[in-house]
Amino acid sequence: MTHVATQAIRRHDPAVTSFASDNYAGVHPEVMEAIALANGGHQISYGDDVYTEALQGIFQRHFGERAEAFPVFNGTAANVVSLRAMCAPWEAVVCAESAHINTDEGGAPEMVAGLKLLPVPTPDGKLTPGLIDRQAWGFGDVHRAQPKVVSISNATELGTLYTPDEIKAVCEHAHRLGLLVHLDGARLANAAAALDVPLRALTTDAGVDVISFGGTKIGLLLGEAVVVLNPDAASGLPYLRKTSMQLASKMRFVSVQFEALLAGDLWLRNARQANAMAQRLAAAVRGIDGVTVTRAVQANAVFAQLDPAAADRLRERYRFYTWNADTGEVRWMCAYDITAADVDAFAAAVAAELAPGGPV
Amino acid sequence: MTHVATQAIRRHDPAVTSFASDNYAGVHPEVMEAIALANGGHQISYGDDVYTEALQGIFQRHFGERAEAFPVFNGTAANVVSLRAMCAPWEAVVCAESAHINTDEGGAPEMVAGLKLLPVPTPDGKLTPGLIDRQAWGFGDVHRAQPKVVSISNATELGTLYTPDEIKAVCEHAHRLGLLVHLDGARLANAAAALDVPLRALTTDAGVDVISFGGTKIGLLLGEAVVVLNPDAASGLPYLRKTSMQLASKMRFVSVQFEALLAGDLWLRNARQANAMAQRLAAAVRGIDGVTVTRAVQANAVFAQLDPAAADRLRERYRFYTWNADTGEVRWMCAYDITAADVDAFAAAVAAELAPGGPV
Amino acid sequence: MTHVATQAIRRHDPAVTSFASDNYAGVHPEVMEAIALANGGHQISYGDDVYTEALQGIFQRHFGERAEAFPVFNGTAANVVSLRAMCAPWEAVVCAESAHINTDEGGAPEMVAGLKLLPVPTPDGKLTPGLIDRQAWGFGDVHRAQPKVVSISNATELGTLYTPDEIKAVCEHAHRLGLLVHLDGARLANAAAALDVPLRALTTDAGVDVISFGGTKIGLLLGEAVVVLNPDAASGLPYLRKTSMQLASKMRFVSVQFEALLAGDLWLRNARQANAMAQRLAAAVRGIDGVTVTRAVQANAVFAQLDPAAADRLRERYRFYTWNADTGEVRWMCAYDITAADVDAFAAAVAAELAPGGPV
Amino acid sequence: MTHVATQAIRRHDPAVTSFASDNYAGVHPEVMEAIALANGGHQISYGDDVYTEALQGIFQRHFGERAEAFPVFNGTAANVVSLRAMCAPWEAVVCAESAHINTDEGGAPEMVAGLKLLPVPTPDGKLTPGLIDRQAWGFGDVHRAQPKVVSISNATELGTLYTPDEIKAVCEHAHRLGLLVHLDGARLANAAAALDVPLRALTTDAGVDVISFGGTKIGLLLGEAVVVLNPDAASGLPYLRKTSMQLASKMRFVSVQFEALLAGDLWLRNARQANAMAQRLAAAVRGIDGVTVTRAVQANAVFAQLDPAAADRLRERYRFYTWNADTGEVRWMCAYDITAADVDAFAAAVAAELAPGGPV
Repeated sequence: MTHVATQAIRRHDPAVTSFASDNYAGVHPEVMEAIALANGGHQISYGDDVYTEALQGIFQRHFGERAEAFPVFNGTAANVVSLRAMCAPWEAVVCAESAHINTDEGGAPEMVAGLKLLPVPTPDGKLTPGLIDRQAWGFGDVHRAQPKVVSISNATELGTLYTPDEIKAVCEHAHRLGLLVHLDGARLANAAAALDVPLRALTTDAGVDVISFGGTKIGLLLGEAVVVLNPDAASGLPYLRKTSMQLASKMRFVSVQFEALLAGDLWLRNARQANAMAQRLAAAVRGIDGVTVTRAVQANAVFAQLDPAAADRLRERYRFYTWNADTGEVRWMCAYDITAADVDAFAAAVAAELAPGGPV
Repeated sequence: MTHVATQAIRRHDPAVTSFASDNYAGVHPEVMEAIALANGGHQISYGDDVYTEALQGIFQRHFGERAEAFPVFNGTAANVVSLRAMCAPWEAVVCAESAHINTDEGGAPEMVAGLKLLPVPTPDGKLTPGLIDRQAWGFGDVHRAQPKVVSISNATELGTLYTPDEIKAVCEHAHRLGLLVHLDGARLANAAAALDVPLRALTTDAGVDVISFGGTKIGLLLGEAVVVLNPDAASGLPYLRKTSMQLASKMRFVSVQFEALLAGDLWLRNARQANAMAQRLAAAVRGIDGVTVTRAVQANAVFAQLDPAAADRLRERYRFYTWNADTGEVRWMCAYDITAADVDAFAAAVAAELAPGGPV
Repeated sequence: MTHVATQAIRRHDPAVTSFASDNYAGVHPEVMEAIALANGGHQISYGDDVYTEALQGIFQRHFGERAEAFPVFNGTAANVVSLRAMCAPWEAVVCAESAHINTDEGGAPEMVAGLKLLPVPTPDGKLTPGLIDRQAWGFGDVHRAQPKVVSISNATELGTLYTPDEIKAVCEHAHRLGLLVHLDGARLANAAAALDVPLRALTTDAGVDVISFGGTKIGLLLGEAVVVLNPDAASGLPYLRKTSMQLASKMRFVSVQFEALLAGDLWLRNARQANAMAQRLAAAVRGIDGVTVTRAVQANAVFAQLDPAAADRLRERYRFYTWNADTGEVRWMCAYDITAADVDAFAAAVAAELAPGGPV
Repeated sequence: MTHVATQAIRRHDPAVTSFASDNYAGVHPEVMEAIALANGGHQISYGDDVYTEALQGIFQRHFGERAEAFPVFNGTAANVVSLRAMCAPWEAVVCAESAHINTDEGGAPEMVAGLKLLPVPTPDGKLTPGLIDRQAWGFGDVHRAQPKVVSISNATELGTLYTPDEIKAVCEHAHRLGLLVHLDGARLANAAAALDVPLRALTTDAGVDVISFGGTKIGLLLGEAVVVLNPDAASGLPYLRKTSMQLASKMRFVSVQFEALLAGDLWLRNARQANAMAQRLAAAVRGIDGVTVTRAVQANAVFAQLDPAAADRLRERYRFYTWNADTGEVRWMCAYDITAADVDAFAAAVAAELAPGGPV
């Protein structure tokens, strides 16, 4: 008879890191401490606890006095609940073709919320007023799903950034057309850190109406938040969150993680580290024959081209994703917990695989 | 200028408990340890980690070799994703009128999954073959949403239990009609502990097809699982979970909690404690003039009738819910962390409020 | 080789009638003439034609100056589109348990619109303020699908009628609670004719917000209309109608049928005939031993109890439905084209089947 | 006081035609006769009538013995109900960016059925195996809505045609990938007539699984049909049609129109006439300075470029649509009832507006 564990056991090697995704990383120690702080005794469930109550002020310090935050479980949910709160059922969302809502959420905006996406091809993952116009038309025509929201991501899925002025231009154009603006901020911390601006410069001050604020990728165990910046832009959020199956019963443990992230500068420290490691990695691989960095490195991702066979050999030691199977482009993502030593070791491994005469 | 915390701070008194709900309790220390064990380093996201891989064997030890578990975030999701995997869009679910899916999920089965519920009034929250027949008819009639699933809860929302034989009778009847059986097991641990049977006696062995297995109420930070017992009864679960916004990116931290709960007997210890405290509380208040225990106390809930004014005074010290505003019936729920001292103090407070001549 | 027709051929005997449903009847000759009038040449499609334009004035003469009509294809659609225009996705509809939306629309309110119905048992198919209160509660509680609309039917599915005062009482109560009122008027013409009041006495003047106005059962080929009486109570109807797959391209042929019905008194003549035949039938069968009329005969339906074997023999000559298989209660529905001779022949057949000593 | 009509009156000039859309035309006289034939007396409602029964054989003569037809009200519904019967809720549909389901149905596939469309840009409105591959990938990846159906239109929205061999190539490629094929046949009659092949050559024999067969544009008052060619490719159609609000109660009047269309050769006569008029129109305007025919004229549409000011003047006499506001391209659609005289008069009007020296 086989031995069966009677309690949880460690099954992984905590020394192993990767360049696959920022959600391969674990929970930041300060976040773990916060969870422990919130533990013990009883608290009212479903968000009427003292941690969630305190959270509003914390978000407002970052996003302005009108901000209201609704923690949810994951990024897909933050996006779908945001968009549903902004749209009537027959309305539609203009987004980049490469937007996470269009490519990586399994069709949740359509299946769960019934929303039509109106995608626009864009080489750098960013929308501009001109690009928005390619889908923002047909107002009043019942045969066309009515454009209602422009959704942008910052940082984008391609590792690029919108500046505050670029977001302002998007918002002004959208509002002029009667559209609202949603920002997928799964990596908003990285964007603000890279641009060295406060979170509100890229959101509230630029005219964004509702954001999905990402916590998981920047050090939480789990947690994203719908943050309504313009109360006129969203309705029914308490109900939508619950009915969308996104209301945590032991909410204190989600909220306190955001407190750990946002009460001080943990969000900024983590984002700076991730961004700096991407710069370090880009600099290192730019010096390696056979590697081409394919996109601007502005946040915490490095996109690169290299020999697919070499990439496959590398993957035996380090996980990362192929971005484009046709071209062989790969994505190297730096999580908040990647160290300079991790980067240097990885860059050395890349160099070794691509050494003249074959792997060394 | 006000002082602003730069990190998370403790905002509650961990000595305070309540009799409001099992989800007012926090995270069991063994679960916290498990989360810490799983932390550090990188793991593949979205469920391809070693903790989630190990989880299948752990669930199979409890529910049989054909069992497959899909962790999700909360109970509403476990129910809705289960039912959606069992039903075509035009099909319907027979349930007790008092079922959680019918009364407490904000209309999620309808809004998210488009499913019609066919509720049956039942005084003790339990369905029987005869009660099922009140809604299980009209097969082949396109004007009637087609009954496809019978959903039962164990323990029920009224604190009552189905025995293994009662569940078998429900399953045999349902299967004979061509229906599948879903079990909402938000408190399945309490049921099995109270009946002193293994989990599979109330599920796999009784013929249940799919269950929602509850973790949050029995000591997890967060986590429920759709557990498919009969693979022919559900389809598309990996896709449905993702598109229903229920796929955790850092899944290792959800899975390891279930390991802590189920690898040994934590689920049973917690359930026994909660159930025993309900028995202790019922025994104590039965001796108090002015309190009537209104329902069979079989799991971890005590329903009682007492003077509403006294109940309101009690609530100044202990939170609990009014179950029926018309009759004044209240619900006292014992969480896994309630102690004998908690119960005794509470019973004393009840007695004091109802003392002849007014509160003492 | 078999002969194959090269054009449509008559396949039925137009002399045969039934007491099964008002939609077993065909198209009234004046409606056929109207369709022919609208034929020929080109008209703008999708409702921008001259017949649809004229229709608004015609509906306003019946329902008041604020009324706006949106023709759709069938009754299920009129109900679902109405309710969807009145509710946010997370809101719910209080209705009688016997309401058509709850029992006969295949779960369309749930599957298509995601709406939760909150059914109330009621012996005569009618709601009252007291009955509404059984489901109209929990406002502001995210765990409860939020009640938003009270939906009543007049005539009801049980052949009973609300008087103008009864509807007023429902509307005043609903509005006081912040709810809107929808009226399923599949047989509104029958109700108004039976009560000898104008259509607006039962709708606009009583405070109803939105109605489904039935055309098919009262003589049209096809066509129902969502009629918004209170413009503040519904939003997005042009979009909802299109996206709900209910916008006819050759709309002129739907609209002109309503013109035929409502420009003069065709609706009233047809309704009076159907109602009178139900009275005639009830009077005739009340005199037959072995038949009990089980419900008040107020519109065009007669419910009765008789020996099931006799009922089955009757059905060999006349189609009609069993209403309750347990009790043997049947429903005899009089369409607008039923004649006194039809009724007399049917009543004679009933008498013959129930003659002492067996069928004569 | 103004005079109020007491019956329907003719409000339009039946001599006026247009080149706007095939659904501006009315009902073909043989279809009107068929409706009259089916009128009178009672028939079972909801599709259990003798006309609907006969319809199956009629469709099978055209589409093969396995074909089963489900009449619905309009083209949007035929498409959405087809796709929903072919897809699980989390699956997706590859289509041309210009497909009617993507551009002209108000987002119904998304809002009603929750389906994600995966659009492919294509200059002539047609998909090829290579174009399909641009979206048919990611099988088994839960983050990508799973491609399940390829939907093509014949004739396309751009007036172009697929040959039988081209459809075969699409079907073979799709099936090899595990995908099903849906064909939007709103103008399938035009396609078959233009290619001089039977309907089945473009559908059943080419491997198509399910079609939307169009009736309204080719002479019916109203009516399209979901026709399942491969019974393994669709499930739940009777339920889906009802719950999707597409089941006509007086179905006999929908079915008999299809009988009029398909029992003989009315579909072919009407399609040939429309197609021939498009050829006549193209030939006439190709001879006019200032008009460029912009696309292949293969079915009943002519796309052309001309001075926008001239187009606007023309529109004072003849309705037609601008196809592309940026380029000034217009669409002239020939309905089945357009005559040579109509075309000649219209071409003369075009010539006059574009005469050198200005309008003559």
